[in-house]
Amino acid sequence: MTKPDISPLAPASFPTLPEIAGVRFATAEAGIKYKGRADVVLMAFDKGTEVAGVFTRSKCTSAPVDWCKKALANGKARALLVNSGNANAFTGKRGRETVKLSAAMVAETLGCRPGDVFLASTGVIGEPLDAMKFKGVLAGTADRLAPEPWQMPAEAIMTTDTFAKGASRTVKLGEATVTINGIAKGAGMIAPDMATMLAFVATDAAIAAPVLQSLLSRSVGDSFNAITVDSDTSTSDTVLVFATGAAKDAERIDNPRDRRLGAFRKALDAVLLDLAQQIVRDGEGARKFVEVQVRGAVSKPSARRIALSIANSPLVKTAIAGEDANWGRVVMAVGKAGEPADRDRLAIWFGDTRVAHRGERDPAYSEAVTSAYMKRDEIVLAVDIGLGKGSDRVWTCDLTKEYIAINGDYRT
Amino acid sequence: MTKPDISPLAPASFPTLPEIAGVRFATAEAGIKYKGRADVVLMAFDKGTEVAGVFTRSKCTSAPVDWCKKALANGKARALLVNSGNANAFTGKRGRETVKLSAAMVAETLGCRPGDVFLASTGVIGEPLDAMKFKGVLAGTADRLAPEPWQMPAEAIMTTDTFAKGASRTVKLGEATVTINGIAKGAGMIAPDMATMLAFVATDAAIAAPVLQSLLSRSVGDSFNAITVDSDTSTSDTVLVFATGAAKDAERIDNPRDRRLGAFRKALDAVLLDLAQQIVRDGEGARKFVEVQVRGAVSKPSARRIALSIANSPLVKTAIAGEDANWGRVVMAVGKAGEPADRDRLAIWFGDTRVAHRGERDPAYSEAVTSAYMKRDEIVLAVDIGLGKGSDRVWTCDLTKEYIAINGDYRT
Repeated sequence: MTKPDISPLAPASFPTLPEIAGVRFATAEAGIKYKGRADVVLMAFDKGTEVAGVFTRSKCTSAPVDWCKKALANGKARALLVNSGNANAFTGKRGRETVKLSAAMVAETLGCRPGDVFLASTGVIGEPLDAMKFKGVLAGTADRLAPEPWQMPAEAIMTTDTFAKGASRTVKLGEATVTINGIAKGAGMIAPDMATMLAFVATDAAIAAPVLQSLLSRSVGDSFNAITVDSDTSTSDTVLVFATGAAKDAERIDNPRDRRLGAFRKALDAVLLDLAQQIVRDGEGARKFVEVQVRGAVSKPSARRIALSIANSPLVKTAIAGEDANWGRVVMAVGKAGEPADRDRLAIWFGDTRVAHRGERDPAYSEAVTSAYMKRDEIVLAVDIGLGKGSDRVWTCDLTKEYIAINGDYRT
Repeated sequence: MTKPDISPLAPASFPTLPEIAGVRFATAEAGIKYKGRADVVLMAFDKGTEVAGVFTRSKCTSAPVDWCKKALANGKARALLVNSGNANAFTGKRGRETVKLSAAMVAETLGCRPGDVFLASTGVIGEPLDAMKFKGVLAGTADRLAPEPWQMPAEAIMTTDTFAKGASRTVKLGEATVTINGIAKGAGMIAPDMATMLAFVATDAAIAAPVLQSLLSRSVGDSFNAITVDSDTSTSDTVLVFATGAAKDAERIDNPRDRRLGAFRKALDAVLLDLAQQIVRDGEGARKFVEVQVRGAVSKPSARRIALSIANSPLVKTAIAGEDANWGRVVMAVGKAGEPADRDRLAIWFGDTRVAHRGERDPAYSEAVTSAYMKRDEIVLAVDIGLGKGSDRVWTCDLTKEYIAINGDYRT
């Protein structure tokens, strides 16, 4: 596979991610699939770190996802081991042995319990992953653990990604100033009926695991679950949030209704949405970043389903790739969504231009104005169903020939 | 738009479609969108012709679909007017006026009631369709009505199709020998949560409209509703079956349980499946014809949903385009289908080669053998879920760069 150019929708540079007290990490080259680049991340958390996670809803989950779900039960974390190049998915008994052995090796290296070790793998499905690949690099990696730079682990977990994804926010939580850092990977096999792709978030806030879990579960709904690249859902999607509690003056929050959580919740939402949108910006072959807004639906879930029907339509996505304001295909996608809709009340906008109104082309429709708009990198497509007050937003990218090229020869 | 080459999956030639007693037709160049080719079909049926139809399940149906649904109520048909180049969909009040006026003009030309005239339009959505385009050609077309050749109307209804689609079967129905002819168009915006694309079937059998309707409604389930090109559902999908009753010795069948229907039912199923598969063979940009078989699911509907999850997965379809036996993506598509599945019981075949078994790669897996198989034009992909006795089949094509090229500049 030839390495594609950096997505034209990528941020100008990797953002500044400050150190998080209680978190150290290092990367290594284990040669799992890629040559000449880091493909393993080891992250260590101080004692007392609490953890929350959400995972793919696939019925064919990977071995590391199964492991993490079990490990999550005690709410504590001391380590995270991630590799790229092999998903350890659909690998049967050998896959289960690999995760068990990997966790044991990490636990021995760092002096913690295997049940406090979290694992994630991303890459090809169905290839056995040899745990011995980790054995050779673990001791050296543990020696290099450091609290920065965050760009290093963000790069090591990339597969078809063209840029490293990071986001950070700093907020007050009670008397303490806490930071939330997140890194993520993902470019294809991205669809919202799931938890998400790989994303790892760390904070020095002191938040009890059940509270962290409720914050995370709510937040993914309008971030990772509101994006789609290609409507395909991975076997390995994983988001983990680690809270070390090591911030100066941090007071432990153990009630999800604690009023002090307000700013933290907003900051966590912002970090997750930022990472989710970066995944769309790195959608395989993407040249346009598209926000689909639906309002006037009978409910928010109905608006979500209509928005996803539009965002997942190959014909809408190819039209956007072709810079064609083909709003007839938006009508088609609304019509096939299976949700209440009334053709004769429908209105559609590209940007600020209303192209369709009350079931037909807008009388003021100008092909020239909409065509000019379609040349932009960022497109807002809005639909008013005209039936109720339900509204929602999702994000997607266009569907280009490069998507086909990237995915026609991924394994070879 | 440049005209694409004929699909490499096309049949060698248009099949022989014999005359059907009671059916005459002619085509015309109305210049609706295309230049230098016929774009209008007028078909006339003898008095006594009964009709059945199924239509798109889109919430944003086209004006001709709305018209046909109403006209179907009396079960009688005397004429069919079809145009390509403009779908008359999302055209509001003007669209409704166009269908009303078109039916009135046909009725006047042929001397029948407007309610016995059926209409279908295919092409761009959202462009007003001027009924006066028909006025100029109707009289001349009516003068040329003839019982053959069926290839002519099949060609006139094409849009992005690269070949004309026809199918025919002749069977005994009671004492009579009857023929079923069908023509269809469709290459993109093809997905199975629907009635189908445009398909018109005529027979000289004498079958009461309610019986015809029950035969048709059942038959589309495993033919037109079992295909997908791109998961997008048209606003205009229409299948109409006309039974003239003009075959020699034809006895009218008015009971859906009539035993004499056995052979006719099978022949109708065969004609619809033949046409449906031809649509897949002409899938936009298609280079591979793919049959997806699912067995061992908990029920037939569950098997259907899993099969469609595979057949609609862009990652499975791009892998097939790249001749890559990437069965890991099949696992992914089974996992995301939302249906009961047990990763550790799953088995997957490409052709006769079992590539995965009991939740991991088959021990006898040979990359060379499967790679050789993937070079074929016709691929059979089979999955055993290992849970129950539900099985089903659907048909699709691969997803290639040509699909993107065709759909990136369709309107211009």
